[in-house]
Amino acid sequence: MKLLKVDTIKQVLEKMDEHFSDLKLGVELVNIGEAMGRTAAESVVSELNIPDFNRSTVDGYAIKASDTFGVSESIPVFLDVVGQVEMGKAAEMKITSGKTAYVPTGGMIPEGADAMIMIEHIEEVDNHTIAAYSSTAPGENVIKIGDDVSKGEALIYKGKLVRPQDIGTLAAAGVRQIKVFERPRVAVISTGDEIADPFEAIKLGQVRDINTYTLSSMAEELGAFVTIKQVIRDDYSLLEASVKAALEENHIVLVSGGSSVGNKDVTAKVIDAMGEPGVFVHGIAIKPGKPTIVGKAKGKALFGLPGHPVSALIVFKVVVEYLLTKLMSRENQRLQLIAKCAVNVHSSPGKETFQMVELERTEEGYLAIPLYGKSGAISLVSRSTGFIRIPHNKEGLTKGETVMVELL
Amino acid sequence: MKLLKVDTIKQVLEKMDEHFSDLKLGVELVNIGEAMGRTAAESVVSELNIPDFNRSTVDGYAIKASDTFGVSESIPVFLDVVGQVEMGKAAEMKITSGKTAYVPTGGMIPEGADAMIMIEHIEEVDNHTIAAYSSTAPGENVIKIGDDVSKGEALIYKGKLVRPQDIGTLAAAGVRQIKVFERPRVAVISTGDEIADPFEAIKLGQVRDINTYTLSSMAEELGAFVTIKQVIRDDYSLLEASVKAALEENHIVLVSGGSSVGNKDVTAKVIDAMGEPGVFVHGIAIKPGKPTIVGKAKGKALFGLPGHPVSALIVFKVVVEYLLTKLMSRENQRLQLIAKCAVNVHSSPGKETFQMVELERTEEGYLAIPLYGKSGAISLVSRSTGFIRIPHNKEGLTKGETVMVELL
Repeated sequence: MKLLKVDTIKQVLEKMDEHFSDLKLGVELVNIGEAMGRTAAESVVSELNIPDFNRSTVDGYAIKASDTFGVSESIPVFLDVVGQVEMGKAAEMKITSGKTAYVPTGGMIPEGADAMIMIEHIEEVDNHTIAAYSSTAPGENVIKIGDDVSKGEALIYKGKLVRPQDIGTLAAAGVRQIKVFERPRVAVISTGDEIADPFEAIKLGQVRDINTYTLSSMAEELGAFVTIKQVIRDDYSLLEASVKAALEENHIVLVSGGSSVGNKDVTAKVIDAMGEPGVFVHGIAIKPGKPTIVGKAKGKALFGLPGHPVSALIVFKVVVEYLLTKLMSRENQRLQLIAKCAVNVHSSPGKETFQMVELERTEEGYLAIPLYGKSGAISLVSRSTGFIRIPHNKEGLTKGETVMVELL
Repeated sequence: MKLLKVDTIKQVLEKMDEHFSDLKLGVELVNIGEAMGRTAAESVVSELNIPDFNRSTVDGYAIKASDTFGVSESIPVFLDVVGQVEMGKAAEMKITSGKTAYVPTGGMIPEGADAMIMIEHIEEVDNHTIAAYSSTAPGENVIKIGDDVSKGEALIYKGKLVRPQDIGTLAAAGVRQIKVFERPRVAVISTGDEIADPFEAIKLGQVRDINTYTLSSMAEELGAFVTIKQVIRDDYSLLEASVKAALEENHIVLVSGGSSVGNKDVTAKVIDAMGEPGVFVHGIAIKPGKPTIVGKAKGKALFGLPGHPVSALIVFKVVVEYLLTKLMSRENQRLQLIAKCAVNVHSSPGKETFQMVELERTEEGYLAIPLYGKSGAISLVSRSTGFIRIPHNKEGLTKGETVMVELL
């Protein structure tokens, strides 16, 4: 049994960085149509220019811009129409001074032309001649080769979550498949003699399992593949067998419950029994969530989370999510909403306090309204839009103070 | 051919509300473990109290609080230990004045007790007696029956997106399955003589299909089931056959391209040919995205979106997403980030302008930095974190002005 010394969140994350530096995910190749929500495992560079021909942004006539310099409503220039470009076809004609060709929006601009004059600014004189009434600058109404993406430019970066517009950009560049990180495999084990299957009749003194459901869903939301969801009794041998089996095929094993320092604190012992270095964090200076264990064995990550559903959820957000996103090299810059605190909020000195809030949209912006509930109240989290972190060296929050809200 | 009158976004959404009031989604029953990201189709009320017994939040002794009134470090009260409650078991003993029983954290509090005194505040005198050194208030360290959720309280509301914590709350209440809206079925058709399959060799003058990919992914991200992804030539008969088939099995048909008023404006004609009322919006006063069509036929929704990828994406966000979330009765209160505008931004008077931005986190909050690219530049959207809407009656944005950023 190691000495119980509580770490700050910062210390915990540093220790995790150090211990889990050799924990890596594999990489797999997926079709871009199936890449949504996955994380790019390498940057992809365009092998093409987009577009790969000069394209018109208007319906009009391709011209040498210099032919129109100085023309106006009263002094047009007359140009010979040498042809008409069809959508999706190469422009075969060549434009020299005094010549022009019709090009539809999105069509290819013929060689020699450097601008498009809109149909609104010309008049058809006869079948072979137009009068152009507007001075047009070189490059006007033209998307040039490589204007959208140039050959060699990055289409997506390693660690980026793939969004619909990224898939569009990859398609535009003719990229059929990309390398993404394999889904981190996670096992979720809830321990507790009082925990019962939610859908069985329960006996007085028992409570229904919550953590297996919330922790699995949160892991899946981040892109993990949850291989095991299990509830077991608070028994050393049972937990040892269960964790041992889970370690075989998972990157991360989560055990909720059994992490307090009572007579039934078996999680720490089981993690230590799995191999070196075993438990390296035992207690975090946060509220709620203090009785948290982080360990490593067989090159995998093991977490002992509090049994209280709200605490387990907060600890997941703070430490497990950190590791999951880090494994995927994902930029872990969580977007936060700026809000004004609606009332004074107390905090626990010496601990980073997590305060659940709901948001109200006002004329001036968002108002963060603290929600309270007794420890363990899962309905509290269900009613919350997010939470505020109050640093350990700060004494609560003042009404009207600006706060950052992390969404749940 | 109807008169081309451009509507404001507000007018378009009102017309959609009116025309699509009879477009409804079916409902299906799913296990709560598979409900993540789906939308509740009815509110669910708890049939139980959570917890359904008085529960201890500490390791300690169950007492009648009044027995400790006035006690202190120097004047303890001595209590007879009548037993020990086991986790997950009913408390069989009864506490009367002068009696107590040990209860672990999460254990059931015996009948007659109304508070818990922590082990830190007692001393074991012998096997049958403790000395209590702290005055304890009624209800202290106790979660009472129904404190988390009371019988009859709502666990989730109709129209709510199911999150991990909601699944936990439902599990806690023993709810195995919930009714969710069926996935809206969506067909995505891109038209254009220049559009080619992204993964085939393309000819000069052709461009690779982008919209099928982005529009499908965006619809899927919102929970839709995309049944058709198709690229066809700008040909009336082909498009008519394709849209007709798509209408059979889908709630929404998206056609991108072919919606401008050029000589190839076939989308509007095809939608009108599908049945009454046909096209009821032809043009929206937004930039980009003006050439947008909304119609109805056979009780289904049809959209003609611009061919330009950025315009198509914006229009999807503004009108298609509105309908999709409305069909699922989902609260469409999109969360927006408050930011300061980094520079002056121009807008198009008379049109609601959409400006792509990236966000920079500063000491004071977020800074919205406008990103520019030529029309059709999909890479612009890929580089953007979100967009700002500039109302049609507002002349651009001023550096330092507070803006709301919608995330992409």
